[in-house]
Amino acid sequence: MILTVTRQLVSHIKQTNYDNIKENAVYETKRSLLNWLGVAIGAANHESMDKVLSVSRMLGSTPQSTILGRKEKTDMLFAALLNGMSSHIFDFDDTLLETVLHPSAPVFPAVLAYAEHQKKTGKEVLESFIVGNEVQARLARAVYPSHYWRGWHITGSVGGIGAAVAISKLLDLDEEKTAYAIGIAATDPTGLREMFGTMTKPYHPGKAAMNGMLAALIAGEGFTSSTRALEAERGFVQVLSEENKLDLLTDHWGHAWEIEKNSYKPFASGIVTHPAIDGIIKIQNEHHLQVNEVQSIHITGHPLVKELTGKTEISTGLEGKFSVFHCVAAGFINLKAGVHEFSDEFVHDQKVKDLRSKITLTIDENMKEDQAVVQVTLKDGRTFSHFVEHAIGSMDVPMTDQQLKDKFIDVTGNVISLESKRTLIDLVYRFEEIADLDEFFEICRPAEAASHIK
Amino acid sequence: MILTVTRQLVSHIKQTNYDNIKENAVYETKRSLLNWLGVAIGAANHESMDKVLSVSRMLGSTPQSTILGRKEKTDMLFAALLNGMSSHIFDFDDTLLETVLHPSAPVFPAVLAYAEHQKKTGKEVLESFIVGNEVQARLARAVYPSHYWRGWHITGSVGGIGAAVAISKLLDLDEEKTAYAIGIAATDPTGLREMFGTMTKPYHPGKAAMNGMLAALIAGEGFTSSTRALEAERGFVQVLSEENKLDLLTDHWGHAWEIEKNSYKPFASGIVTHPAIDGIIKIQNEHHLQVNEVQSIHITGHPLVKELTGKTEISTGLEGKFSVFHCVAAGFINLKAGVHEFSDEFVHDQKVKDLRSKITLTIDENMKEDQAVVQVTLKDGRTFSHFVEHAIGSMDVPMTDQQLKDKFIDVTGNVISLESKRTLIDLVYRFEEIADLDEFFEICRPAEAASHIK
Repeated sequence: MILTVTRQLVSHIKQTNYDNIKENAVYETKRSLLNWLGVAIGAANHESMDKVLSVSRMLGSTPQSTILGRKEKTDMLFAALLNGMSSHIFDFDDTLLETVLHPSAPVFPAVLAYAEHQKKTGKEVLESFIVGNEVQARLARAVYPSHYWRGWHITGSVGGIGAAVAISKLLDLDEEKTAYAIGIAATDPTGLREMFGTMTKPYHPGKAAMNGMLAALIAGEGFTSSTRALEAERGFVQVLSEENKLDLLTDHWGHAWEIEKNSYKPFASGIVTHPAIDGIIKIQNEHHLQVNEVQSIHITGHPLVKELTGKTEISTGLEGKFSVFHCVAAGFINLKAGVHEFSDEFVHDQKVKDLRSKITLTIDENMKEDQAVVQVTLKDGRTFSHFVEHAIGSMDVPMTDQQLKDKFIDVTGNVISLESKRTLIDLVYRFEEIADLDEFFEICRPAEAASHIK
Repeated sequence: MILTVTRQLVSHIKQTNYDNIKENAVYETKRSLLNWLGVAIGAANHESMDKVLSVSRMLGSTPQSTILGRKEKTDMLFAALLNGMSSHIFDFDDTLLETVLHPSAPVFPAVLAYAEHQKKTGKEVLESFIVGNEVQARLARAVYPSHYWRGWHITGSVGGIGAAVAISKLLDLDEEKTAYAIGIAATDPTGLREMFGTMTKPYHPGKAAMNGMLAALIAGEGFTSSTRALEAERGFVQVLSEENKLDLLTDHWGHAWEIEKNSYKPFASGIVTHPAIDGIIKIQNEHHLQVNEVQSIHITGHPLVKELTGKTEISTGLEGKFSVFHCVAAGFINLKAGVHEFSDEFVHDQKVKDLRSKITLTIDENMKEDQAVVQVTLKDGRTFSHFVEHAIGSMDVPMTDQQLKDKFIDVTGNVISLESKRTLIDLVYRFEEIADLDEFFEICRPAEAASHIK
């Protein structure tokens, strides 16, 4: 008997477990978790989080699972929503570059919220994430690019299915029920790109986590759905895309894992600014120049750098992300371009403003997207130039573990203590050893809360 | 200043209130409520309801709002989900024939769940439903037919926006926040037609009610979204349809109300069977024939009758809905074709089986969809024939109030007492007078529960 696509996928899901997953996939999953956890904790106190928490209180939500970086707990569904939101607020989470899917934001929140309340182990978290992501990332490839270009925010629209598969795995659902979970999640996609620039953008991965968890929970009770949800004429792929690449969903399952292709943003601005920031930091790491020595800085980059980030007049931190001039000024002064460098305060700093005004840009049609030349000319006539062949964070030059740890410490700001940050880094890198996740979640909450809550 | 479509819509929403809505729209809303309430209560104990309730218990859901026809209460979100589901389980709810939108199923559950917990009045319920439906029904027209034919179950996909608008109205949100609510709901559509035939079909209006309520609640806290969610290039209409009929959203607002076009199914089977069932009941009302007198019954109908309901061999109640032969046998014997007539038990009744085998069908290309001829030939040679020009339940021959009341009493089965049924009918027809809805919800719960719960 030839299995239909969803049936075959479900068979693969059932046969996959921690022990037959490649070690490198587990390693990359821990790096993904560290990066994701950092950006989630860092944005925990954003005003949009308070608004949703206020609604969860109105609904009398039961404290089951931790809101990362906050004192509050909510029920598992709201925890999935809230942690999915916070991890996407900074636009600083991980990316599968082939489809611009942010793999962690819809899946980890669902997995962790369920794992905390239902007392699952670190190993089960890693396994279910890898399988959930495998399905969503393959599905993203199967519907890309028409799905994205039609207007779907792919992280929200396929993410619910990733979350549903991951929770099905944690629940150890049989093949039939796993197919139902996929069906219920497939019928409930979230995310129109029109919402970019509003609080509703990070709502997408959060809602995907929530929708996917609910789908898997009711499927676990035997709630029925189509078992051909992905491939059918009126199923997900055909209704939401113009693609016909269903074999991408199942081919060569287990040979390699989608999470192994994950990438992390070293800087909090759009990816086209990264080569130039990388270049200026390379120069500064070597020469330690001062702002008052600088005569001018000149960037040569891909045409998109000007198109997307050519803003010269900026007045808010957010606008700074769309100005390669500000990005390079930040890299020169602070040797990084993280959350702080895109605050209103930093954008208005007189030293930063002065340096920004000295920076110019030329585009070069022959340059690749991950390339740039940065040249600093000093008042004394000396020049320093650096050609970035592949920017840090690209597939060719992935962030090192040390860089990810530094980013984690930076991006979590003052939400948790430095001691907590160091303990979390240690726990994430040995996540498969954790039998009881309570300690992990305890450390994800702000220190001052520890004395109030119990 | 020319307002964008969503902005103009929001302005209309704000300016509409109970006192400037036509009386006929209020009257039709009460008929919609009675029909919807009946099918919701009738299906309250379906196994799919138990499965979702089990998950709500796992999540520690707080008892805020009534599950119609059941003892349990859940939080407002789950009540919206559950009552939306139950009201669509029988496929017996109301329809706006122009777009096949089922208007009540996504909106009333959200409105009632919120109104119960937040102590709103009957008048506020009617007003918010009418406005929510006005938006969803106009939106349905704006995206129909390409949206539906692409594979969206329109009741789920536009219903969330209807629910969000209705709850925004109950919350009395300002224009900005109402636009946010529409944006958050628009980004979160539910419902692929592939799910038809599974429990996930009624999940669609339920999930729409839940998504729309959540959207309005967080918008009420100031959670931001696009204020061009419907018309933008990557907004709802352009991403989910191929239509360009945005003026349908706002033109002639308030001249007539979409709910005035609502229709109700007199029989629990597909609409193409209704002319023939109507015909046989007309004959029986006049002649009171016995099964054992019948030689043969012959139906002449539109080609779709054969295509969609030509099944002669049936073995389940559900299959009975796809057999015009069974439908006409039911109408002959019981003078109705409600939930009971499509039970497995009734389908297997020997008398029904015998009569079914005597019924034949001819199609006639010249006949309209709401027409049929039914001819009964008795063993003694006498014949009785009836031509149905417009079937009961069509726009031309709407169900009367008495017929809706009879349907309510029938469809609610043994879930609530006859006394409760009669009280509910009375309350619905004077719903605008109800200041405190507690009594109404109390009667929507099964009698035996009254002594246990308080």
